[in-house]
Amino acid sequence: MPRIDLNADLGEGFGRWELGDDQALLTTVTSANVACGFHAGDPTVLRRTTADAAERGVAVGAQVGYRDLAGFGRRFLDVPPDELTDEIVYQLGALSAFTHLAGDRVRYVKPHGALYNAIVHHTGQARAVVEAVRAYDPDLPVLGLPGSEFLRLAGEAGLRVYREAFADRAYTPEGTLVSRREEGALLHDPEQVAERCLRIARGESVRAIDGTELHLDADSLCVHGDSPGAVEVARTVAARLREDGVELRPFSRTDA
Amino acid sequence: MPRIDLNADLGEGFGRWELGDDQALLTTVTSANVACGFHAGDPTVLRRTTADAAERGVAVGAQVGYRDLAGFGRRFLDVPPDELTDEIVYQLGALSAFTHLAGDRVRYVKPHGALYNAIVHHTGQARAVVEAVRAYDPDLPVLGLPGSEFLRLAGEAGLRVYREAFADRAYTPEGTLVSRREEGALLHDPEQVAERCLRIARGESVRAIDGTELHLDADSLCVHGDSPGAVEVARTVAARLREDGVELRPFSRTDA
Amino acid sequence: MPRIDLNADLGEGFGRWELGDDQALLTTVTSANVACGFHAGDPTVLRRTTADAAERGVAVGAQVGYRDLAGFGRRFLDVPPDELTDEIVYQLGALSAFTHLAGDRVRYVKPHGALYNAIVHHTGQARAVVEAVRAYDPDLPVLGLPGSEFLRLAGEAGLRVYREAFADRAYTPEGTLVSRREEGALLHDPEQVAERCLRIARGESVRAIDGTELHLDADSLCVHGDSPGAVEVARTVAARLREDGVELRPFSRTDA
Amino acid sequence: MPRIDLNADLGEGFGRWELGDDQALLTTVTSANVACGFHAGDPTVLRRTTADAAERGVAVGAQVGYRDLAGFGRRFLDVPPDELTDEIVYQLGALSAFTHLAGDRVRYVKPHGALYNAIVHHTGQARAVVEAVRAYDPDLPVLGLPGSEFLRLAGEAGLRVYREAFADRAYTPEGTLVSRREEGALLHDPEQVAERCLRIARGESVRAIDGTELHLDADSLCVHGDSPGAVEVARTVAARLREDGVELRPFSRTDA
Repeated sequence: MPRIDLNADLGEGFGRWELGDDQALLTTVTSANVACGFHAGDPTVLRRTTADAAERGVAVGAQVGYRDLAGFGRRFLDVPPDELTDEIVYQLGALSAFTHLAGDRVRYVKPHGALYNAIVHHTGQARAVVEAVRAYDPDLPVLGLPGSEFLRLAGEAGLRVYREAFADRAYTPEGTLVSRREEGALLHDPEQVAERCLRIARGESVRAIDGTELHLDADSLCVHGDSPGAVEVARTVAARLREDGVELRPFSRTDA
Repeated sequence: MPRIDLNADLGEGFGRWELGDDQALLTTVTSANVACGFHAGDPTVLRRTTADAAERGVAVGAQVGYRDLAGFGRRFLDVPPDELTDEIVYQLGALSAFTHLAGDRVRYVKPHGALYNAIVHHTGQARAVVEAVRAYDPDLPVLGLPGSEFLRLAGEAGLRVYREAFADRAYTPEGTLVSRREEGALLHDPEQVAERCLRIARGESVRAIDGTELHLDADSLCVHGDSPGAVEVARTVAARLREDGVELRPFSRTDA
Repeated sequence: MPRIDLNADLGEGFGRWELGDDQALLTTVTSANVACGFHAGDPTVLRRTTADAAERGVAVGAQVGYRDLAGFGRRFLDVPPDELTDEIVYQLGALSAFTHLAGDRVRYVKPHGALYNAIVHHTGQARAVVEAVRAYDPDLPVLGLPGSEFLRLAGEAGLRVYREAFADRAYTPEGTLVSRREEGALLHDPEQVAERCLRIARGESVRAIDGTELHLDADSLCVHGDSPGAVEVARTVAARLREDGVELRPFSRTDA
Repeated sequence: MPRIDLNADLGEGFGRWELGDDQALLTTVTSANVACGFHAGDPTVLRRTTADAAERGVAVGAQVGYRDLAGFGRRFLDVPPDELTDEIVYQLGALSAFTHLAGDRVRYVKPHGALYNAIVHHTGQARAVVEAVRAYDPDLPVLGLPGSEFLRLAGEAGLRVYREAFADRAYTPEGTLVSRREEGALLHDPEQVAERCLRIARGESVRAIDGTELHLDADSLCVHGDSPGAVEVARTVAARLREDGVELRPFSRTDA
């Protein structure tokens, strides 16, 4: 029986401000990338999100990001690697306090936004994130983009490495994401997205934006939840996968 | 042989800004109240301070405070108790990540600034801090002002409670601190401060500001280090206590 | 022909986070209390909101608040008055830059949230806000609660003072607001709210929560817009007032 | 009689944290680059610094920077140009409120830290800063590095452009700064620095790091003040220039 994980970003409100439909996502995904307070997420949001996730058996990952509330962590910030390591460790500790309260623990690390994008290529920052995870807990897996510096260095450092594919993004023939600025970069039709997710979960090829056949080896599928349409897509994907016999299960519990 | 602990605030820089002479204090005190990032202390400061403290055998306490960098945590902030509990948990987790990296752990909790002052009387916030410590780690001791709501509620909740006296502050006949705004509130003469510390460590009475005899039962003496004069006082106190046969030892290791 | 002003809070998003339906409110109110960046509002939000307000002829007021993004300015912060004055001046200057870009200027000052509530009674902070306005521009009017320390001191300082009533809040027989925690404190029925607003605009008495007749002398009616129901109430109020011959016009332009 | 301006960074404390010796610098320089709150400088610091500068006849410039207190604005932040323009406008308005209180006005704009360095080459951000100044006040001069994109675009936009040289930095034969990481990049000898400043003020050539003769056309000399040594250098430069008949005068008042 094929199996795969569904991950989404959660806990991205801050104070008075809410973002996304966390309750809907928690009934849909198997892994929750929870913001740790640097790009989003105040302590109360962290507590609620980790408690709700634990109650529903959703695995909590640390969605670590740049210290940039005003930019939601979506702007590259040239943090010296040593300081970046410290900032990641800080976020890991903060989130861990709340998973601990919920009787659980942080199951993996997935960098957020501009940091995620930077460490596809930026060796210094990629190494900084790896070093933070290794120093904090060498048994903590990381989730990232196949082919990235981040996953390469994480593997070299002996961390467990998991790969994700993006449910609602078009791919180039080389297997990288089509830029959001190009036409066709985002897939909006829930059925089309679900169909593609099913193929990935079964290990079948999918079509790149130019029609080329492409294999996306993925341990997890990333879905979004910050718009009503996105929640609808996520739900359709989850329902379709289950109907067609794919087991949805956190990648971080594959060995359990 | 009489024994006592010396505590001071450390790690209160932020980014480009430094504060106090942490290196001098680490050779002087036995317990370091380390800022956790909400009123002061960035992740790099936390890492360095906890590493330096561990290297010198100085016990690290979590100096939790209000989220108020601009006010250095010195302005009362009317945080609803539930949110305050979450904010304290967040800070405990963040600091714990760094003591963990240093091969150590957080040994106690001492609230900072306006929060420290508020929970002398403010039952809701006092309970919020107690609840945070209890939920995070019921074996974690707290350090505070004798007679405060904070220590009373902490004791009721089953936490280990330690009391501090202030080395360089004048006391009223009732055993409370003379307000900083009144004349004679601060003691500046290192010898006079050291003499008083010695009496407290030996369990002898000291003089209140009006000359009344006063017993200050204290597990720890708080010294300051954010001015050259304060460092000099701290050093004189430590030297005098040792010379006169008082063992300086972290209160948090009394059972060791 | 009776006339009155309708004011609402706008520009309270921050970065990725949106709040309220500013576009709907801008077609409804005559005065916009625009957040200045301390409790909400980033520079881009300020620019857009002031530009949109200018385009629609809506008067822009400075909605100054405590420096507390995490608490949305809704938690009392014990800022020393001198510093509070400086913080208000800073916010006035920042917002003024954007009204200047929009070919307009800041028309009045209305404190936000916990600051608004504090300066009903807190003389030190009330004086601090008055001093900031007086120093920055003594011709800038203030909008506040009738009977508050703030308006009293503002009047003494020679500032132009305008009074507001709350469209959707119940009043005590003494003319103060019924606490949100008590039953019946909030009025939800748009028609009932509109009816009451009409009476206030005409200078007629309204009913306090116990049925007592009450006169609310008001230059402006405060409506809310941070929920779909609130926008509906605001629209109903505006439509009803216009239908019944009340002119809606910014209080800050009464002399024009 | 030759004349030149001396500029330095001031007002870079924040809350409890102080930085540099502003009082010493205010008796030394003719132009003060005052931090505006985004990388440093709280409202109280802004008020004091602008008041002190006005009292001493020192011209106040807006030292605008990235929104990055933790990094002191020294880390490149990839802010989209439209948002950067808004952030600069916000800072200009905030500082202007305080120069207004001091009976003065902002006399020029000099970007800070990583922003200063970025806009030497980064066309998008350079244009964003120029656009902010132009929109806020097209009569406001800018101060920057000769040959930078920033000054080029500012000139094209019709802004008045002033060039600075660095008193205590070594230059390459091409007239750019030797990287701080290279040996000899920083000049520490006050007499040597003063000698070079004198030559620049007189329009004479100076020596590049390899001994090449170099002409540095400069309207202003930048000195530093965040260390005791730096203050000593600044004082020596100012004294030497005056002794040798160079008039020290704000470049922003050249037409007065």
